[in-house]
Amino acid sequence: MTDATNQLLDIVKFDDRGFVPAIAQQHDSGEVLMMAWMNEQAIRETLATGQVHYWSRSRDALWHKGESSGQTQELKDFSVDCDGDTILLSVDQTGVACHTGRRTCFFRAFRNGEIVETQGVDIDPKTLYK
Amino acid sequence: MTDATNQLLDIVKFDDRGFVPAIAQQHDSGEVLMMAWMNEQAIRETLATGQVHYWSRSRDALWHKGESSGQTQELKDFSVDCDGDTILLSVDQTGVACHTGRRTCFFRAFRNGEIVETQGVDIDPKTLYK
Repeated sequence: MTDATNQLLDIVKFDDRGFVPAIAQQHDSGEVLMMAWMNEQAIRETLATGQVHYWSRSRDALWHKGESSGQTQELKDFSVDCDGDTILLSVDQTGVACHTGRRTCFFRAFRNGEIVETQGVDIDPKTLYK
Repeated sequence: MTDATNQLLDIVKFDDRGFVPAIAQQHDSGEVLMMAWMNEQAIRETLATGQVHYWSRSRDALWHKGESSGQTQELKDFSVDCDGDTILLSVDQTGVACHTGRRTCFFRAFRNGEIVETQGVDIDPKTLYK
């Protein structure tokens, strides 16, 4: 497993700060839930535990998605793009992906010259972060 | 339209090089096709023309997706995430998104400790780039 993970890490191209963007997609509905960043440690933890981990650039710390809110992501499939510089995570999202309490982070669309909200709040953020 | 575009650009957070990651998703199937980078000019051109434009960081130039290969992306919807630092483009992809001739760029998955190819080549790249 470690050898295989090393083989995978060899084809991932991290940026000059050691990060790679990772897109999380709900495995069955196809919804694009969010985009965050991984480093080598986040990839290793994700593959070892089956629970998605990112690297929080604001906190400069490993981030087990859902560690505070309970809104975890179970890993279903892990893909790398042609250039090795973007990761696509197929996940099973518990509850909501967005810290605003919406299912996905992409809830603002630009339509007919206006910014419109395309998703409502499913879970009150006050409930998510007690 | 220009005022509205300016309003949109106000909520987009570009990185210190003036770029923002943009995920392209096929509007009907939900396939995540690719991730590339936009700057202000690429966003303006995309919204003005309805054809997706990125910024090629390797060529340091505006990149009308499909300009060489004919594999263009028609814009269907333009979304911004909660933090304003990632864009989700709903598109109608002509042919293939990947320069390798595959439908999407995410054709390598890590499964059971092995890297496996999950998509075949639909169009010979030699045909795409004459």
